[in-house]
Amino acid sequence: MRLVREARPHGREKLRSNLMEWFHWLLREAEIYDVRYPVKGAYVWRPYGMKIRRNVEALIRRLHDETGHEEVLFPVFIPYEFFGKESEHIRGFEKEVFWVSKGGEGGERLVLRPTSETAIMPMVKLWVQDYKDLPLRLYQIVSVFRAETKMTHPMIRLREISMFKEAHTVHVDREDAERQVREAVEIYKRIFDEMCLAYMINRRPDWDKFAGAVYTIAFDTVLPDGRALQIGTVHYLGTKFTEVFEVTYLAPDGSRRLAHTTSYGISERSIAAMLITHGDDAGTVIPPKLAPIQVVVVPIFYGEEEKGVVMPAAEQAAKALREAGFRVHVDGRDDKTPGWKFYYWELRGVPLRVEVGKRDVEGRQVVVARRDTLAKYAVAVDELVDAVKALLSEVEANLRRRAVEELRGRIVRVETVEAARAAIREGKVVELPWSGDNDCGLKLQELVGADALGVPMDSEASVGGFDLRDPACGKRAEVWLRLAERY
Amino acid sequence: MRLVREARPHGREKLRSNLMEWFHWLLREAEIYDVRYPVKGAYVWRPYGMKIRRNVEALIRRLHDETGHEEVLFPVFIPYEFFGKESEHIRGFEKEVFWVSKGGEGGERLVLRPTSETAIMPMVKLWVQDYKDLPLRLYQIVSVFRAETKMTHPMIRLREISMFKEAHTVHVDREDAERQVREAVEIYKRIFDEMCLAYMINRRPDWDKFAGAVYTIAFDTVLPDGRALQIGTVHYLGTKFTEVFEVTYLAPDGSRRLAHTTSYGISERSIAAMLITHGDDAGTVIPPKLAPIQVVVVPIFYGEEEKGVVMPAAEQAAKALREAGFRVHVDGRDDKTPGWKFYYWELRGVPLRVEVGKRDVEGRQVVVARRDTLAKYAVAVDELVDAVKALLSEVEANLRRRAVEELRGRIVRVETVEAARAAIREGKVVELPWSGDNDCGLKLQELVGADALGVPMDSEASVGGFDLRDPACGKRAEVWLRLAERY
Repeated sequence: MRLVREARPHGREKLRSNLMEWFHWLLREAEIYDVRYPVKGAYVWRPYGMKIRRNVEALIRRLHDETGHEEVLFPVFIPYEFFGKESEHIRGFEKEVFWVSKGGEGGERLVLRPTSETAIMPMVKLWVQDYKDLPLRLYQIVSVFRAETKMTHPMIRLREISMFKEAHTVHVDREDAERQVREAVEIYKRIFDEMCLAYMINRRPDWDKFAGAVYTIAFDTVLPDGRALQIGTVHYLGTKFTEVFEVTYLAPDGSRRLAHTTSYGISERSIAAMLITHGDDAGTVIPPKLAPIQVVVVPIFYGEEEKGVVMPAAEQAAKALREAGFRVHVDGRDDKTPGWKFYYWELRGVPLRVEVGKRDVEGRQVVVARRDTLAKYAVAVDELVDAVKALLSEVEANLRRRAVEELRGRIVRVETVEAARAAIREGKVVELPWSGDNDCGLKLQELVGADALGVPMDSEASVGGFDLRDPACGKRAEVWLRLAERY
Repeated sequence: MRLVREARPHGREKLRSNLMEWFHWLLREAEIYDVRYPVKGAYVWRPYGMKIRRNVEALIRRLHDETGHEEVLFPVFIPYEFFGKESEHIRGFEKEVFWVSKGGEGGERLVLRPTSETAIMPMVKLWVQDYKDLPLRLYQIVSVFRAETKMTHPMIRLREISMFKEAHTVHVDREDAERQVREAVEIYKRIFDEMCLAYMINRRPDWDKFAGAVYTIAFDTVLPDGRALQIGTVHYLGTKFTEVFEVTYLAPDGSRRLAHTTSYGISERSIAAMLITHGDDAGTVIPPKLAPIQVVVVPIFYGEEEKGVVMPAAEQAAKALREAGFRVHVDGRDDKTPGWKFYYWELRGVPLRVEVGKRDVEGRQVVVARRDTLAKYAVAVDELVDAVKALLSEVEANLRRRAVEELRGRIVRVETVEAARAAIREGKVVELPWSGDNDCGLKLQELVGADALGVPMDSEASVGGFDLRDPACGKRAEVWLRLAERY
């Protein structure tokens, strides 16, 4: 493997100048997703997008199955009687719920699930008898519905969230439930790591936790425009739902006890974050493990005679790669030029391109181009499989490293409201000293003009020995509070 | 491999005496599906059921992907404006549609899709430019909603059909669309064959075709109570939808032409049919290719000492089978007897059971029991993989053969209404001579007291040289009309 063109990645000017415009362009041009469906906040997954999504769903399923979660499927209809049982939950969701009616039919008052705690708890009550039935770890991947009044964005802020993976777990006590919370965080890390996403882990402030949670831990990434995007949440629900749904179990000592529950969710937002994080002005890069096509082989020929030499070599290369387990596509279209094909597949984010020309065939070599850096390598035919394996690993590592470095560069610690405002204007996430008092936190949000993401769980939360003051209320600061502009 | 117990399958008395009661029992006891969810016609898939379903979905996806279909995902909301465009379609569906509303919000009038022709056509109009974009073959696996007023049955007659695989295809002309109809029929045959289901293929009479179809071809199976169950339909839609949605393409001669479309669907009903067809009074048999567990290994030991000998041998057998690619589970539970475990796994339909006892270990053998026949074989440890492979094939072939024979035995040709009524009472499907006239057909249904399934497409439809009369109206008969009691 010999470098024949230095790395010179595509620019990100278009992407940076108007991120949502760029995202619409990507979804349309790469035929991932169609935003023209005539219902607000509801969009269409096109075949190429669906292939990416299927790979992400398979990853999610695998990591949940491996860790003792069992897939289930609950109905989309929730009787209002159940939906309204937990008072904080209903307060949080009732304004954005869709109602279902059947012309001329009375009786049942149904809502479309915005999340499934209140559908699942009544059944869990029937399934759980004694402590041996616990822990119970269920998940489903479904559509949920939220009548967003904010501006909707494709794949990001939806009225039909169509890839909501929601896990619901039931435990004997707080300790076991919180152990599950930590495991959920680890599972999400592994999912986002495979998507090459960078993330912060933040404990949401009380005023922004899930409606019905004791506390909420959130994964936030930051998009290239400096706005934070929540890509996953993990909730410890305590006994709030088990109390109202009377989910109890028989303990070894013969007593009946209330179970403790958790829930955690991710959605197609994570795919949006992936497409955007690895995006540039030529398209996106799909992380190798999730790419529907990992290697596209582009034969380069002029005229039938060259085609007769080049096409068999291209097919041969593809065959060797397929046998080694890679997902490979040969773009043998006659009516498109090689340059057109390069553009086409770079747009769609295929991580590696193998170019096979007449001279390559003569030299028993091919040229391999990386999508992330555009570096090109001459590779002997016999070494192609090893080279592709190594390069796919490098692409993956590079995507992850770039994302992590970009995020790291965005997080700044400041001590004053003025510095915070200035940093937010530059697209930063700020960490400000906070007393931990809710009123001070809400005031901080207002003063800074940004949303609190919460207290860092991926770095030291405590302000430690520093004698810092909460700039909102002058109290002694206890922890750092992260704030950012948010989607 | 040496036969050590003759075949003596479980009886089917309970199953035959009250099929739906038996089905409820199976779903509950085998923990497949929970019917206690508090919304009419909406049920819960439990983990074991979901594992079966995932395998069926994977089969459906594979056969669609392999034949040039592309998976997509459309929103569940359809604007009424689109839903109402095709007049026959809306007439057929409007009574059973669910409406969605958002408290206090005017504007959009939305329905929950009962099927997606009217969601997909407006987008197809945008995607199809010229003849090179055709044929277009899309499919999705989604929930659809029908406010059934008839009695609902778990997995069979639902208000939320949660595994609706709907394919929608677009073609240059009738000829290509009808070629697709034939291909769809072949795909469905392959799906049902792998599920070991027996089926009739019937061209539905005009009065029972899909609302908006030119014609409908249906797959019907017959349950053990003699009632027919529709498990798949294929529709040629002509230009009915493309006219109202203005789906045209540029032909090679420069003219704009209306495209022709088809749609075809199957649902979780096929899984219900599979569980019931292969059911008996001890549970069900899952066809080997779809079974979440293909082989359960049950160690048989009394006391810790035997356990120390038997468990390693059981694990060893499981390891060999797993390495050969089988899905294997070792039931090593200490607190259950072997007999209890036999019952447990027979209920759940695991096709093969491997029993490993102390004497087996000494004799370097195991005992393999078939779920379908309960025949038992002594198998040398070294031959286990080959034996399991052969026996799984035999189980599959036997399930299919039994189903096909049972169905064949149910179809009878009769020439009079009286004979037809008598046969229907005995749980038969009758074939009666029919003039082909709709009024006569409707009258035949009434006279016989059964529903017309349509004209056979899996056997000779024409009455041929026989000079037969349509018993409803005395006209000369042209074809056979199948009638049966239906779910």
